[in-house]
Amino acid sequence: MRRPLSIAEMAAAGGRGERRASEGVERCLNNIERHEPAIRAWTFVGREEAREAAAAADRKERVGGPLHGVAVGIKDLFDVAGWPTLGGAIWRGTEPASTDSEAVAMLRGAGAVIVGKTVTTDCAYLDPPATKNPWGAERTPGGSSSGSAAAVAAGMCQGAIGTQTGGSIIRPAAYCGVAGLKPTFGRIGTRGMLPLSPSLDTIGVIARTAVDLGLMWEGLSGEGPESLTSAPELAVVEDRLLDRVDAAVRGVFKSGVEKLRTAGARIGRFSARAPVESLLPIHSALMAGEAARAVAREYASYGERFSPKIRALVERGKDISNEELEGLRAAQVEATEAFERDAPRDVCLVLPSAPTTAPADLSGTGDPSLNAPWTLLGVPAVTIFLGLAEDGLPVGLQLIGRRRRERLLLATARWCEDVFGPPPWPRGYGDV
Amino acid sequence: MRRPLSIAEMAAAGGRGERRASEGVERCLNNIERHEPAIRAWTFVGREEAREAAAAADRKERVGGPLHGVAVGIKDLFDVAGWPTLGGAIWRGTEPASTDSEAVAMLRGAGAVIVGKTVTTDCAYLDPPATKNPWGAERTPGGSSSGSAAAVAAGMCQGAIGTQTGGSIIRPAAYCGVAGLKPTFGRIGTRGMLPLSPSLDTIGVIARTAVDLGLMWEGLSGEGPESLTSAPELAVVEDRLLDRVDAAVRGVFKSGVEKLRTAGARIGRFSARAPVESLLPIHSALMAGEAARAVAREYASYGERFSPKIRALVERGKDISNEELEGLRAAQVEATEAFERDAPRDVCLVLPSAPTTAPADLSGTGDPSLNAPWTLLGVPAVTIFLGLAEDGLPVGLQLIGRRRRERLLLATARWCEDVFGPPPWPRGYGDV
Repeated sequence: MRRPLSIAEMAAAGGRGERRASEGVERCLNNIERHEPAIRAWTFVGREEAREAAAAADRKERVGGPLHGVAVGIKDLFDVAGWPTLGGAIWRGTEPASTDSEAVAMLRGAGAVIVGKTVTTDCAYLDPPATKNPWGAERTPGGSSSGSAAAVAAGMCQGAIGTQTGGSIIRPAAYCGVAGLKPTFGRIGTRGMLPLSPSLDTIGVIARTAVDLGLMWEGLSGEGPESLTSAPELAVVEDRLLDRVDAAVRGVFKSGVEKLRTAGARIGRFSARAPVESLLPIHSALMAGEAARAVAREYASYGERFSPKIRALVERGKDISNEELEGLRAAQVEATEAFERDAPRDVCLVLPSAPTTAPADLSGTGDPSLNAPWTLLGVPAVTIFLGLAEDGLPVGLQLIGRRRRERLLLATARWCEDVFGPPPWPRGYGDV
Repeated sequence: MRRPLSIAEMAAAGGRGERRASEGVERCLNNIERHEPAIRAWTFVGREEAREAAAAADRKERVGGPLHGVAVGIKDLFDVAGWPTLGGAIWRGTEPASTDSEAVAMLRGAGAVIVGKTVTTDCAYLDPPATKNPWGAERTPGGSSSGSAAAVAAGMCQGAIGTQTGGSIIRPAAYCGVAGLKPTFGRIGTRGMLPLSPSLDTIGVIARTAVDLGLMWEGLSGEGPESLTSAPELAVVEDRLLDRVDAAVRGVFKSGVEKLRTAGARIGRFSARAPVESLLPIHSALMAGEAARAVAREYASYGERFSPKIRALVERGKDISNEELEGLRAAQVEATEAFERDAPRDVCLVLPSAPTTAPADLSGTGDPSLNAPWTLLGVPAVTIFLGLAEDGLPVGLQLIGRRRRERLLLATARWCEDVFGPPPWPRGYGDV
């Protein structure tokens, strides 16, 4: 039996004497052993520590938290005590971290079993990682939370954490056919995490389904679930930004929206006063300027060891003055306030999670442009599995909420997931 | 009990129902679990495969080969079927290898249990790896067989294979206080190994002691041990090359030679007609010219992802014409023939294995200049633990033989090892 237990199954079992934690962890370790040579989702796996933590969870009389005994992967941008933090480069992180990052401490507090560190792209930027997409070895898993998304998709862990500065949670989760949440900016503390762009970096979660996503979110934030009392109200985003979506994804998205309408969702439209697309240059310059400062010290010593794309970003960012950077931050605040005024209340915006399915191009990690504007605005975003495109690859539905409306967003995502059904396993994974 | 079994203990046990293979492998896996976060010797560990192979070895009635059930690490420059080959770069090796390299097939044939892939520097050149020296986290383990030497030194495997193009086996083994053999050029076939400089690349072995080294060599080459009938004859190398040796290593070396003399060895001197040191520029130009050609295709596509030192080597090598390269190869042949004429028969040359103990400088991998001339000449070299310097770090004795005299060299090394005693464990490793 290789299919990993879902987080919801773990929670339902309640942990009383069933050794569910050990069983769940062993299934994940089996999948790592079996699939890791081809997938390369991990930089480090702490098997014995994970087994011991699972055994300790199983010895407890009652469930200790929403993630009691759940096998979780940590993007290798976060410190885990005793393990190195590479941040996407083989030469970095030569000292094991002395203490857990804030996010990891929250997860442990919620009962999670930390299985290992998942591959991130170099500095969580766009340079391609070695990680492959379980849906096809020639496909990028997306980035920068490449390992977190691929590991969940391959059943190597039950949930994972990631970060999003552009589209680094939503895009890889969608490409890998699983679910992801990028919450409101600033919800989870970044202590013990390598920064890329502090005005944009947002910590979030990846899991197979919206149901599991909610439990991961509860574990990370302490915020319990909310239920919808009636069918949700959705608004399809209309913007020049959507011109980037290809015909295959457009088709799956349209028919998905029709299914939701048929199931009872009220479907409207949303178009912002200024095109959402116009936020992209602000996002990109802000990220460059902040990245150059975030890695300045390390870059001064080891610049030539950085990967090409992050190197180009840092070089660009060096030319952005402090005054320009202040201007960009002011533009971010202004755009955020405008969105807060414009955006409908108690309505989730919907759009595709990425312009295409996972590209068959391992020289990059795909296009984050359908995600980056929402990251700039600091509003929460979720992706769930929507359906398979003609090429057999998964397409994600992206839902956007207002600030701090994670619970509504997650409840809406669960409702939509009930309509679409849970994601299938890629061929060769899951129940095989 | 964490001390790994020695290969000699395994061979003596004979494997009859004692489950020695499983015990040996478990001890190594325990050490990996415990020490790997700080040491970073591995790019991939195949725990379940290793356990299954060990269990299969234990089920056999009698020992199947010299390495029956021995836990071995493979420098991540060699293909192991089903696992990726990174060659020192996180972005490389995105496909698992389809078949074993020739060296790995030989080891498996001799009964070895393959535990995992050990860290190599990028393209097996001089860029520092993340691997640390078990003798001190601020010390380089040397390179390019960094992971193989550190893994053996930390008790994470019982033996390992490596390659030497300059000083990539002898230097890391000496820095990490273990034993290494770089055999005669061409003894072991390089099929399934990433090349750096085909006129220099030599496959060899690392183990804790000269005794274990002999068993590893038997497993890799099929060539059984030889015994000395009397105390060996040694010749101390005198050459400008030795001016590079610092006072601390010089002191340990001198007192070691005196111990050997006291124990009965006949000690002479050797100085070549032309200084051995004069071979260094030939070595370095030959390596650059061949490296540029060996990685040309990959470099054309991904040049900027290569690490700085290998990049500089390749750039230098591009300027070396095919005619110059032919001239360098002719100079290599000439030097080799001159050495064959000059070198005494049935005598092993001795000199320190490196000019210093492991440097406290993680921006490089130390100085291979006491090793590179012998690599150029294609003659076999061994390093064994000689003693500890004032700084508490190990010093190696390097023994050089004539071509294809591995058996004499190994027998002499065993004799010397009996005089010096086996290497101590670094603090915190071994029987703790």
